[in-house]
Amino acid sequence: MKKTLYTLLLAASLLPLGAAAQSITRLNPTNWWVGMKHNTVQVLVYGPQAGTLAYTVNYPGVKLVKTNIVENPNYAFLDLIIAPTAKPGQVALVGKKGAKTVTQNWELKARDNAVKAQGVTQADFIYLAMPDRFANGDPSNDKFADMADPSSDRAQPFLRHGGDLQGASQHLDYLKELGVTAVWFTPVIENNQGLTDEGGAKRSAYHGYGFTDHYTVDKRLGGNAAYKAFVQKAHGMGLKVVQDAVYNHIGNNHWFIQDLPMKSWLHQWPAYTNTSYRQQPITDPHAAQIDKRVTLDGWFVPFLPDLNQQNPYVANFLIQHALWTVENFGVDAWRIDTYMYNDQPFMNRCNAALLQEYPKIHIFGESSVTSIVDQAYYVRNKIDFPFKSNQPGGLDFVLENAMLAGLKEVGTPGATGWDNGAQRVYQALAQDAVYQDPTKLVTFIDNHDHNRFLSEVGEDVAKYKMGLTWLLTTRGIPSMYYGTEILMKNFKDPSDAEVRRDFPGGFPGDQQNKFTAAGRTEAENDAFRFVSTLANYRRTHPVLSSGQLMQYLPENGQYVYFRYADAGTVMVASNTTDKAASLPTARFSERLTGFTKARNVLTGETLSDLKTLQIPAKTAVVLELMK
Amino acid sequence: MKKTLYTLLLAASLLPLGAAAQSITRLNPTNWWVGMKHNTVQVLVYGPQAGTLAYTVNYPGVKLVKTNIVENPNYAFLDLIIAPTAKPGQVALVGKKGAKTVTQNWELKARDNAVKAQGVTQADFIYLAMPDRFANGDPSNDKFADMADPSSDRAQPFLRHGGDLQGASQHLDYLKELGVTAVWFTPVIENNQGLTDEGGAKRSAYHGYGFTDHYTVDKRLGGNAAYKAFVQKAHGMGLKVVQDAVYNHIGNNHWFIQDLPMKSWLHQWPAYTNTSYRQQPITDPHAAQIDKRVTLDGWFVPFLPDLNQQNPYVANFLIQHALWTVENFGVDAWRIDTYMYNDQPFMNRCNAALLQEYPKIHIFGESSVTSIVDQAYYVRNKIDFPFKSNQPGGLDFVLENAMLAGLKEVGTPGATGWDNGAQRVYQALAQDAVYQDPTKLVTFIDNHDHNRFLSEVGEDVAKYKMGLTWLLTTRGIPSMYYGTEILMKNFKDPSDAEVRRDFPGGFPGDQQNKFTAAGRTEAENDAFRFVSTLANYRRTHPVLSSGQLMQYLPENGQYVYFRYADAGTVMVASNTTDKAASLPTARFSERLTGFTKARNVLTGETLSDLKTLQIPAKTAVVLELMK
Repeated sequence: MKKTLYTLLLAASLLPLGAAAQSITRLNPTNWWVGMKHNTVQVLVYGPQAGTLAYTVNYPGVKLVKTNIVENPNYAFLDLIIAPTAKPGQVALVGKKGAKTVTQNWELKARDNAVKAQGVTQADFIYLAMPDRFANGDPSNDKFADMADPSSDRAQPFLRHGGDLQGASQHLDYLKELGVTAVWFTPVIENNQGLTDEGGAKRSAYHGYGFTDHYTVDKRLGGNAAYKAFVQKAHGMGLKVVQDAVYNHIGNNHWFIQDLPMKSWLHQWPAYTNTSYRQQPITDPHAAQIDKRVTLDGWFVPFLPDLNQQNPYVANFLIQHALWTVENFGVDAWRIDTYMYNDQPFMNRCNAALLQEYPKIHIFGESSVTSIVDQAYYVRNKIDFPFKSNQPGGLDFVLENAMLAGLKEVGTPGATGWDNGAQRVYQALAQDAVYQDPTKLVTFIDNHDHNRFLSEVGEDVAKYKMGLTWLLTTRGIPSMYYGTEILMKNFKDPSDAEVRRDFPGGFPGDQQNKFTAAGRTEAENDAFRFVSTLANYRRTHPVLSSGQLMQYLPENGQYVYFRYADAGTVMVASNTTDKAASLPTARFSERLTGFTKARNVLTGETLSDLKTLQIPAKTAVVLELMK
Repeated sequence: MKKTLYTLLLAASLLPLGAAAQSITRLNPTNWWVGMKHNTVQVLVYGPQAGTLAYTVNYPGVKLVKTNIVENPNYAFLDLIIAPTAKPGQVALVGKKGAKTVTQNWELKARDNAVKAQGVTQADFIYLAMPDRFANGDPSNDKFADMADPSSDRAQPFLRHGGDLQGASQHLDYLKELGVTAVWFTPVIENNQGLTDEGGAKRSAYHGYGFTDHYTVDKRLGGNAAYKAFVQKAHGMGLKVVQDAVYNHIGNNHWFIQDLPMKSWLHQWPAYTNTSYRQQPITDPHAAQIDKRVTLDGWFVPFLPDLNQQNPYVANFLIQHALWTVENFGVDAWRIDTYMYNDQPFMNRCNAALLQEYPKIHIFGESSVTSIVDQAYYVRNKIDFPFKSNQPGGLDFVLENAMLAGLKEVGTPGATGWDNGAQRVYQALAQDAVYQDPTKLVTFIDNHDHNRFLSEVGEDVAKYKMGLTWLLTTRGIPSMYYGTEILMKNFKDPSDAEVRRDFPGGFPGDQQNKFTAAGRTEAENDAFRFVSTLANYRRTHPVLSSGQLMQYLPENGQYVYFRYADAGTVMVASNTTDKAASLPTARFSERLTGFTKARNVLTGETLSDLKTLQIPAKTAVVLELMK
């Protein structure tokens, strides 16, 4: 399989010059806008012998600066400059060869005034869902006979289940009730991939990480129109949308993989080479070149060809697509898949382009690392690395690891161990000095690639609540994986499909509907209310989003921290032991001075004396302090 | 006990003004030198009512700038400036009160031309010994009836055993044979401490970390003259000497503790407060003030009062003592005890003073931390912390942890685990980007506070050899604890005395003499030869001291790294599995290109083909590559 794919790619890049009639079948980006700061656009022109034509553009305010010809004669890359004075309209791209003239229109649109690129901040609470698994609003788009994978079957964990953007759109009220402020879908872009065969199971590309056409939202999710409608509806309800972007690779069924523009479009190896998935060679000053190359240029998996972002045409293609996506769909923030495997100078260029055009947009990449030094490398940091990242945020894997490992020890003798229990969380946060701004990291306790949180903590609801309390009250921008609020569980072993089950009630014929209180069990309602109470408290109390963090050294399994600002102070005290605790508070006077009572945010109870706190076993209390 | 001590100190600091006749019984520093860059000296003058005198100095080139009076009338602090033109001689410090005149001479010496402050570099191999436990050269100084602890008894693990500098001096040839280039003793300064009672056992201060008079080497070790003679003899044999310095605390029997100059001389607390031993509050941007204070100003143990280095008199006292020690004894490098518990701005001042006077001196502190970020904080680093350390080196606890944990997994399934075995070592070194210069860290696999290395690795000689190979071939300045080379073993639990046993043959009446090949068993000779071979190879092959490090991602339990320079290349390949390995070397071409054969440094064997290496199970091979 590996070798076969590789051979195909090589063959594609060496297509002989054909004698077919010249034509243009594809332009990327599919359009642009007048008035963008990014007004130098490189249009990829594709079609039989499209690279053999001599191009001209005759449109006021649009100048064809250069026509770039590459190895494959089916491509031309036109460098256009769009003057601020240009008017919206159809720009005719005219290609000539001898007597033959080929004309293709490329639209310059007016920018709309829609809300877009609002960014996400600590004031947000992000809900991560897989659109195929969340809700099916349009059963007519579940499968298409003309797609590489024509199947859809909810009985098969690895096949598509039919969820779509229309379905998600119908449940935004549910997310609002939960206290969510932003929705992040795994990628919505077309994944017209065939089934892959892994470990004997046929798998569809329902996860979305194998793009096959950057400019098309998968029609099984509703297509471009449904995505635009979803964003507009979300914005109308005060919800933001996070785009899941993938630069590192595309699907092996991507249209340009069938006919590569040039050999260097991809990272090509003499024999198939997988990435090592290792972070160290990138930051290690002692690393060997080959180890760096394998990490960066090795393929993520055999069916996801690795883009060579040092190729300037590839870089332009990806950067323009990022800008186009924000402008076209109006998304608010940008989550970047497999961030650490990308060419980092390219990532900086791409980030800079997005931030220049949309100053408030937030960008947070996925770099699944274990060390704080490596995590810092991929965001704006305070370490004098030879390469300096400009990425504003990142997913906080270090804190996730610490929270999960710490929670597992809650209620055990490990809860009071020297470096265990809450100490792990405390110690992870204590290293925040390496970041320019740790509050811009996106925090999480689960996602579509990890075990579900409830299973990670042994289905112990006390640990579950403590973890969610930490997530929703400590520094950072919290995100949560769909279904955690209704106690969905499972491990990714033996199969990641186990942690990607359908949201009950999202699909026609579902026996249960967990979107409603009536459809949830009492335990599920308790969990839902817990998340909802905390999330809505966070949403309406800026101290949890703009307040400073002060954390105290955990002692005897008691971990206390504060969020504080002029507007108020919230105290979070976690008793991680299996015994009720009586916690004297004199030690916390730096933050408690001036406060005499408190409201327990989770129970509504008022505490009229703060000298000693009574905290039940395995419980985190959230106290709004009062004078 | 804790409260009693504390009350005594408070009382001492509040001594009433007495009516005793004025006199001067002590001057610190005890002398100075002409021609020092540090020519502003604050002389502590101590004696009954010494602080009530009006001082004058009438000596060409010596100017009394200011007499500082403090809370306790028994002290005066004289600020003197010593001009470059001043001549050696006795400077009369004249104090007057009414008709009473007190004169005390203070010597200005000429500087000698002896070798001193040579520093230690990667070209060195440091041997750490506890002088009380290494060799007894002068049984007449084992105990003194006039000391607070008059006992000495080799049968008692916690009492003094009689080792001394004269004894160590007699075994420098042994250290030369071993390949050692520098000797580091636990502190030699007077510890005229009484016995402490810990866990029911009476303990002497044989470890040396409780100074009672900074300007006196403990007479049970031979006193100042023996130390000076030791350094001179060592220098004559081409060996360097590392001083173990302690700034954070002194013994509770220190002369000035009996009569504190002022209350703020020490960190005083309303009730006895121990340090938390926690590193995090210092670097944590979210830390509470109280947690920082407890870490820094809490006492290390109840009988080691914590000096307040923010008190300028304390700071001057300590800095001058450091300079005096180097100048007086001629030591070469400076190991600083409990470095992270000191006031860091003070440490920077102290380091700067030493480096200004002795540009080649090396300074490496003990900060027993677990995280790379915290370890970086205490040395010159590349992290933009609010405080920037100027310390050139530090003991590499992070690497020690990694080596020990990794070695425990050698030969087990863990040897090939994702983050296990040699991966731990690889990953620790991969984070060197945080340091200005990681080669200045002092590496180790054992010390007087840790389990002995052989016991740490389960008395597995294969692991022992692999660990020593790593220590002696990777980056950094290697140090080793005495006795490791003759397979001394033991755990510090139940008692640290177990890892501080006498070196057999160092004491009168010893049945065995491990200083000689004849006195060692075959296994001990094998170990000794192993260390000696590697250490002497290192000593004579600059590539191991000045060469760059390149390390490759461990694969299948095989960890390969190189030290390389124009002068040559050494390859170290470690098979950490329990099976012999056949290791293809094509992957290492970046370093192997141009070399066709190699000499196995440990066996002397020649390898005529480098295409595939045959490495026995649990073995590190050290190959000098040849063209």
